[in-house]
Amino acid sequence: MSHSVDDELSDADENVHHVWDNSLEPALTVEPGDVVGFECRDALDGQVIPGSGVEDMRDASFDPVHPLTGPVYVEGAEPGDVLAVELLDFEHKGWGFTGFMPGEMGLGLLPEDFPDPGLHIWDLADGVGAFVNGIEVPLDPFPGIIGTAPGDAGEHDTLPPRDTGGNMDVKQMTAGSTVYLPVECPGALFSTADCHAAQGDGEVCVTGIEAPMFVTARFEVRTDMEIEQPQVRSDHPYTPTGRDEPMHGTTGIAPDLMDATKLAVRHMIDHLEAERGLTRGEAYILCSAAVDLKISEVVDAPNWTVTAFVADSLFE
Amino acid sequence: MSHSVDDELSDADENVHHVWDNSLEPALTVEPGDVVGFECRDALDGQVIPGSGVEDMRDASFDPVHPLTGPVYVEGAEPGDVLAVELLDFEHKGWGFTGFMPGEMGLGLLPEDFPDPGLHIWDLADGVGAFVNGIEVPLDPFPGIIGTAPGDAGEHDTLPPRDTGGNMDVKQMTAGSTVYLPVECPGALFSTADCHAAQGDGEVCVTGIEAPMFVTARFEVRTDMEIEQPQVRSDHPYTPTGRDEPMHGTTGIAPDLMDATKLAVRHMIDHLEAERGLTRGEAYILCSAAVDLKISEVVDAPNWTVTAFVADSLFE
Repeated sequence: MSHSVDDELSDADENVHHVWDNSLEPALTVEPGDVVGFECRDALDGQVIPGSGVEDMRDASFDPVHPLTGPVYVEGAEPGDVLAVELLDFEHKGWGFTGFMPGEMGLGLLPEDFPDPGLHIWDLADGVGAFVNGIEVPLDPFPGIIGTAPGDAGEHDTLPPRDTGGNMDVKQMTAGSTVYLPVECPGALFSTADCHAAQGDGEVCVTGIEAPMFVTARFEVRTDMEIEQPQVRSDHPYTPTGRDEPMHGTTGIAPDLMDATKLAVRHMIDHLEAERGLTRGEAYILCSAAVDLKISEVVDAPNWTVTAFVADSLFE
Repeated sequence: MSHSVDDELSDADENVHHVWDNSLEPALTVEPGDVVGFECRDALDGQVIPGSGVEDMRDASFDPVHPLTGPVYVEGAEPGDVLAVELLDFEHKGWGFTGFMPGEMGLGLLPEDFPDPGLHIWDLADGVGAFVNGIEVPLDPFPGIIGTAPGDAGEHDTLPPRDTGGNMDVKQMTAGSTVYLPVECPGALFSTADCHAAQGDGEVCVTGIEAPMFVTARFEVRTDMEIEQPQVRSDHPYTPTGRDEPMHGTTGIAPDLMDATKLAVRHMIDHLEAERGLTRGEAYILCSAAVDLKISEVVDAPNWTVTAFVADSLFE
């Protein structure tokens, strides 16, 4: 599917910014209804590429993280409105990577379990993500980062998501979905970045299948909605294949929801090591790329249950 | 589907217990491979029935919660083994309920938002859950409670799940799935209870579609597995209908995972009130019965993203 584009932003430096800041000059001004194409760099801004080794992941600088394409000023969008972003199309470049940093960086869900870095470069050329041992991860690209500029003045880090969206990593924000973003500044000042060719709910090792991508989206301004944080209408993916299928689930049960999440993922890594022959580092990467985290219950005090599910079909 | 049953436990008082306690006498002793039927009372032990009003929910005593059917002693199961429970069949009685208690009980995800009790009695006779405004919730029954006796001596409350399972509320533990439970006592001392005809991931208002049910299961003892907390193999349900379909998602973004969960549910309640014409109490009940909570990311410090998804098809 391709869409005719009214405006396009390349990933040249003048269209790329590295902080959220509502004083940035718009890279582009568009009308409601316009279709805009965004060339998006990968999250590490080119520091890991096909041929890179794990040392490139280990030594990567966080200074350029994340390179955001934008901001786009949407005519008529005012604070209190909602920017509706219809995601039309994603084109990757045939490759991506998933990796994690040494423990002292403190990134990822389980830095204490993984003192050494890990990296997998994915070949996406056949329309699936090729992993080790013949494992194939279905692709369903989405922008890890999609947001508008915060109303608060000054520079804001791109790592945490916030009321205006940003680094939400909601894997259901795929082509065909519409993302609703609160507007806090005139023109909304929309940017997107950090595209993932696939990701498990949770993104546990801190990266999905990170991939440079061309994103096509249509903008509308909604004055009839009132939201405090982003919402989305989407029809996929809720499982890796889009249908109920055999999966293996591990539970994490603990009085703290984050601890329960860590346990569910640790138990899944145990399972993938014991039953699927992966190293623990490979298992951590596969969890981040293709294992979904569900909150099973948050009401049976004092212990909560989180489950991690992996589809059998990844291994077939 | 019906299965020939080797043994059967009625829900007579001598087969029902209200605490986990490894000193309880087995109600039944079975061999590995046996198929056992369990008549399970509802979670509130008959205090809310068809014709009940919201005052019955408000005035319900927690003393009998939960009535567990069991314990079953499985020959050969020893501490360190895994009890594999193949869930074969669930038969409900044509009705169920979802309700929540006044705020001071502190139960449910949002007691501070709901000072008054709420109750819906579901007609399940047509194979779906009939809600207000023509909304129909697909059914996929499972045991909210499934577990073995804890190794620690003494009485243990049935409300929290623990390493040996119990009140996990994992909605994917449906017919056809196999639940793996750690064994901490000779004979495993298995019990089940608290069946739900349907539930959203999260069970946010504290009840699923609570329903008395007849549960059929086959037991095996696995000495070749090693697990710390329960696991499951399942092929459904990952969405209400078992396939990718249009859904509306709300996000909760906050530096505490429980706070993010509360925000996602609050935003979903706002959405159901504004777009689907439900009262906030109805919306809270529908969230508990049919809205799924996903952990979208737990790595973009310091803010985590939880999403709540509701399927359009519920309203069609």
